[in-house]
Amino acid sequence: MIKDKPIKTEHFDISSKQNAAHDPNLNGEFPMTFPLEQGPRRVVIEHVRPEIDGGRFSIRRVVGETVVVSADIYADGHDLLSAELRYRHVGDLEWQTTPMTMVQNDQWRGEFVVHQLGRYEYSLESWVDHFKTWQRDLKKKDDAGQDLTVDLRVGGDLVEQAAKRAAGDDQKKLLSIVDELRRTPISDTAVPVALGPNLTRLMESHPDIRFATRFDKTLAVWVDRPKSLFSTWYERFPRSSSPRPGRHGTFRDMERLLPEIARLGFDVLYLPPIHPIGKTHRKGKNNSPAAGPGEPGSPWAIGSEEGGHTAIHPELGTLQDFVHLIRKAGEHGIEIAMDIAFQCSPDHPYVKAHPQWFRWRPDGTVQYAENPPKKYEDIIPLNFETDDWKALWEELKNVMLFWVNQGIRIFRVDNPHTKPFGFWQWAIGEIRQEHPDVIFLAEAFTRPKVMYDLAKVGFAQSYTYFTWRNSKHEFIEYLTELTQSEVREYFKPNFWPNTPDILPEHLQFGGRPAFLMRLVLAATLSSNYGIYGPAFELCLNVPRPGVEEYIDNEKYEIKHWDWDAPGNIKPVIARVNRIRHEHPALQTPWNLRFCDIENEQLLCYGKATTDRSDILLMAVNLDPFHTQSGWVKVPLAEWGIAPDQPFTVHDLLSDAKYIWQGEYNYIQLDPQKIPAHILRVHPRLKRETDFDSFM
Amino acid sequence: MIKDKPIKTEHFDISSKQNAAHDPNLNGEFPMTFPLEQGPRRVVIEHVRPEIDGGRFSIRRVVGETVVVSADIYADGHDLLSAELRYRHVGDLEWQTTPMTMVQNDQWRGEFVVHQLGRYEYSLESWVDHFKTWQRDLKKKDDAGQDLTVDLRVGGDLVEQAAKRAAGDDQKKLLSIVDELRRTPISDTAVPVALGPNLTRLMESHPDIRFATRFDKTLAVWVDRPKSLFSTWYERFPRSSSPRPGRHGTFRDMERLLPEIARLGFDVLYLPPIHPIGKTHRKGKNNSPAAGPGEPGSPWAIGSEEGGHTAIHPELGTLQDFVHLIRKAGEHGIEIAMDIAFQCSPDHPYVKAHPQWFRWRPDGTVQYAENPPKKYEDIIPLNFETDDWKALWEELKNVMLFWVNQGIRIFRVDNPHTKPFGFWQWAIGEIRQEHPDVIFLAEAFTRPKVMYDLAKVGFAQSYTYFTWRNSKHEFIEYLTELTQSEVREYFKPNFWPNTPDILPEHLQFGGRPAFLMRLVLAATLSSNYGIYGPAFELCLNVPRPGVEEYIDNEKYEIKHWDWDAPGNIKPVIARVNRIRHEHPALQTPWNLRFCDIENEQLLCYGKATTDRSDILLMAVNLDPFHTQSGWVKVPLAEWGIAPDQPFTVHDLLSDAKYIWQGEYNYIQLDPQKIPAHILRVHPRLKRETDFDSFM
Repeated sequence: MIKDKPIKTEHFDISSKQNAAHDPNLNGEFPMTFPLEQGPRRVVIEHVRPEIDGGRFSIRRVVGETVVVSADIYADGHDLLSAELRYRHVGDLEWQTTPMTMVQNDQWRGEFVVHQLGRYEYSLESWVDHFKTWQRDLKKKDDAGQDLTVDLRVGGDLVEQAAKRAAGDDQKKLLSIVDELRRTPISDTAVPVALGPNLTRLMESHPDIRFATRFDKTLAVWVDRPKSLFSTWYERFPRSSSPRPGRHGTFRDMERLLPEIARLGFDVLYLPPIHPIGKTHRKGKNNSPAAGPGEPGSPWAIGSEEGGHTAIHPELGTLQDFVHLIRKAGEHGIEIAMDIAFQCSPDHPYVKAHPQWFRWRPDGTVQYAENPPKKYEDIIPLNFETDDWKALWEELKNVMLFWVNQGIRIFRVDNPHTKPFGFWQWAIGEIRQEHPDVIFLAEAFTRPKVMYDLAKVGFAQSYTYFTWRNSKHEFIEYLTELTQSEVREYFKPNFWPNTPDILPEHLQFGGRPAFLMRLVLAATLSSNYGIYGPAFELCLNVPRPGVEEYIDNEKYEIKHWDWDAPGNIKPVIARVNRIRHEHPALQTPWNLRFCDIENEQLLCYGKATTDRSDILLMAVNLDPFHTQSGWVKVPLAEWGIAPDQPFTVHDLLSDAKYIWQGEYNYIQLDPQKIPAHILRVHPRLKRETDFDSFM
Repeated sequence: MIKDKPIKTEHFDISSKQNAAHDPNLNGEFPMTFPLEQGPRRVVIEHVRPEIDGGRFSIRRVVGETVVVSADIYADGHDLLSAELRYRHVGDLEWQTTPMTMVQNDQWRGEFVVHQLGRYEYSLESWVDHFKTWQRDLKKKDDAGQDLTVDLRVGGDLVEQAAKRAAGDDQKKLLSIVDELRRTPISDTAVPVALGPNLTRLMESHPDIRFATRFDKTLAVWVDRPKSLFSTWYERFPRSSSPRPGRHGTFRDMERLLPEIARLGFDVLYLPPIHPIGKTHRKGKNNSPAAGPGEPGSPWAIGSEEGGHTAIHPELGTLQDFVHLIRKAGEHGIEIAMDIAFQCSPDHPYVKAHPQWFRWRPDGTVQYAENPPKKYEDIIPLNFETDDWKALWEELKNVMLFWVNQGIRIFRVDNPHTKPFGFWQWAIGEIRQEHPDVIFLAEAFTRPKVMYDLAKVGFAQSYTYFTWRNSKHEFIEYLTELTQSEVREYFKPNFWPNTPDILPEHLQFGGRPAFLMRLVLAATLSSNYGIYGPAFELCLNVPRPGVEEYIDNEKYEIKHWDWDAPGNIKPVIARVNRIRHEHPALQTPWNLRFCDIENEQLLCYGKATTDRSDILLMAVNLDPFHTQSGWVKVPLAEWGIAPDQPFTVHDLLSDAKYIWQGEYNYIQLDPQKIPAHILRVHPRLKRETDFDSFM
């Protein structure tokens, strides 16, 4: 047999470990023939799903979710097979098993539920089931009236072998059946016993798996806490939280805002960086290259003589104040999400202490961030390829662990796609070992494959393209990709209608109706969503043709917000968030189903719990200027409603109630009132007096 | 870091090797984090195609074919990448490399041609290309009129490092460029040199691949000889080859038929089993359970006291006669394909010599073949699960090697799907090591995944569902699956309009036009096809409603054929086969393209060589009873023909010639004449006097 030659050329000796890292199959070569000693294993297990990139990456679930596993399983000939899905939490020694069943065309299916945080493993096993095959053939021969004497004795031998594998009661029962099957002349009860449920169950408990085929990989599930699937985010700059104009906001000021933030229904409060801000090349108002006296600069230009990524910007307060804020927020059911932006201002302590972590140019100047011809001189990128990268990576991991130890369990990571994937996979992996409850949100607005890879390497949530999706077709196409394709196995979207960097065109020109429309879309299409406030609830939308960034951007100046200014949409936000918390159907994105409606400006979609105890139908008018109407086709069958059975729909936004019947029902939405319905569907028609119970 | 626990339960210790066999990744577990030492490798290589079942199986090609490899390749940030496809024949020490190029959306592509029989390997490597990135940024800054002094010095350092990796002339050239780039003030030529093709080429020859990512698998291509992609089969029972009625045909008689078989254009002559036939429970005429005196029995009931699978049925001649037939056939350009049917008659020598290779029942009788309630008492299946299976498998492999040593290079394997896949993978693998030119055809009429798996484990050709595909929709759907999906990477179809077991309904009722139609379909849709003769060319079609098997089947009796009986279609067969041999466009199935025509009874498809030197358009009337016509839309652009440019089509079947123009052209086919066109397309209009040259 030809042997694979060793690789001789020097060039090729540098074999990558990057991918090999994911796969112990280091030389990655496959045998040319089938090793003889493996002969009698006749079953083939192929095309196991889910399996991300050949098993290199875990799929993701949250506690309580189900993992459905399918595979192509078959053998030569016409014998019947049995197959088993096996799984365990890595903490457990023993494997759980659950039978798989054939769906169609040699495709089998099984499922299990994950109950603990951390890593689960799953694999498959299948074998030729000679007993099941014997039962099938015995029945055929019996139906054909053939003499079964010998066949029953054949079965007796199979049962006797099972008895040897069994013990105690089962063994006794099996042995007594052996006698029954071997009796001559055949007893009247022999065939009924041979084909009966009792023997079938006994034989299933003691299968002959000597030649079982086990799938050659152990695949993994990473289980996060439910918050990573259902969360409601509010972004706010603490320095703008002062009740008095002019004064720099503090963590104490933020604490005073917590009750209102909680009343609005947010459970994650995301703060832009809270570290000392550099002075060299500090940016001024509206991103001007030089700050004037007293201008605060961008919080993302991290580091000054007052400290770096583990320090607190003095004007915000102390580390103690911050820990106090974390605890206070917790009392209001709010978690603080911290911003991780691995970049430095020219004044960052690292620059002096670890110059080797940066790129230096031949003229002795440091290489600042640039996107030629643009320059960002207030920020210096870290050089992840430095010869000293191990120390750098360790330091950055420790920065995150430092904040974990202060009580932080959610990180919003700034531009993770400009740091090596390997760094994140390693750092997140290490942190997750000790703290499986930590959630990382990736702020990566970049190419699709890069965004998806960040989820694969460990980010539990990700920003998305939602912000730039406008037409009905775009929403259906994108949400179908996110919720119905393989992507859903590892990528959890977090929808943001706005951010400090992004005031999208439709908000600039659509006004209040557009803000309401985007709010309902984000909050009901995705179970994770967030807004940058108070800019959002105040419908701040000074148009800047061709520019997405807010004018007079809070990134470069301190604001004093009148949070209750007229025209604010806080009441609607509060109601939408209350609806999300009261309705489990809105607490997962995987149950999304679009509904046909012949109007390009109306987007309709249903969401229901598997037990149908909570059924919602959303309708959104994508046109902020005109009333739109149409006939929506609702999935009556899925909802278990008969075509001739009237049912009630209750608009949880407006409180209006309608009685519908049949597949097609009329909808009309005036953006000047409210551009959306969130309809609770009540399969059975209630009496008017019952309506209160819908509230 | 949590360690994967060892598997404790006794049950699970029996880990399958069946799948593991394909994959050295024996424990199949994946690390939970990214190993730190692999840090600086920033490039990700994913979704490499082709890759069959994660690389467990080779893709297949024939000598001269191209392998196109694509992959998702990307890194963090915005640096430019370079990527390389590497490949080699396993016989070679050195790897060949060819650059890959980005197609779109981070998908890269490269290709190579295979020139030798046997196994090739391929893999990928990619790295962040700091020089290419520097060139891109330099150009942007130059366009923006920025000062480039420092940037050119940065480039000088990159070039200097490349010079260290280079030697001789290249090194000298690089060093001189370093001086140029470092000169101050900047020389007018510095930027042109920095961005010029000369430096670009030099830097490409000496890339910095210290942190290159190599795809972690080495994937394989098995290269067969061209015959496995383009072959024309003729099946005939040697015992029916006697010129005189009554007498048992011999190999010598077969030799006399060779010139005519060659004239008809066949290059593979497939003989049903030629071994001694059992006498116990021998089948009689029309499959009657008991043979009358002098009845020959089925050649598939192999083995008698005269010998088994390595013996010759005495009435056919001697081993020497068979070897002589093989040589004579070769002189006519014909290869003998041998039938491998691993089953035994009750009289087979194995039964006495190796009783442990069979299943014995409690009453001491042997387990014959059965499909309850049906019984096949003239055949005993081998028990591939016998405790003595190693000896059995070795013996069966040696049976095939015995015939290889007699000069056989093509095996048609009977019911391979009733023997373990592992057996075939092992046996074919072993035989291919010494004899990479041996071709195995799988006669497996069974479920799709099983048929495809047989191709994966080593069968170079396979029977297909063609025999039962009738409607236009069925043909387009099935052929698209076979020629345009991943299946084409490893599965080579062989189309048979009939076999001794199968006289399909459309031939039973469609008469001569149906035979001609199926001939043209098989011969032009697939580059491998075959017929069972003379039953086919004589249009033998005694209808048997509900039964597919021929009446008075040659399997159970000796025939005396009048090969030139009136109504035979030998002239058309000869012409079709000549066209196949003269037209490379028909010698591969991968170039198949269906053409629209608004008539459900007309199937139209084009085939062209990549260089367009040979362009054919086939049109087949699927209705054997009525003339059909329609306007076919031809792929003018693909053929490089302008819409206003008239072109000639020449029907290679009827010799008729037409002048066409534009996309839509008229076609009419009368099944009573000939139900098909095979049109040679001549992009340039020829003068009448040139028409001879088309012949």
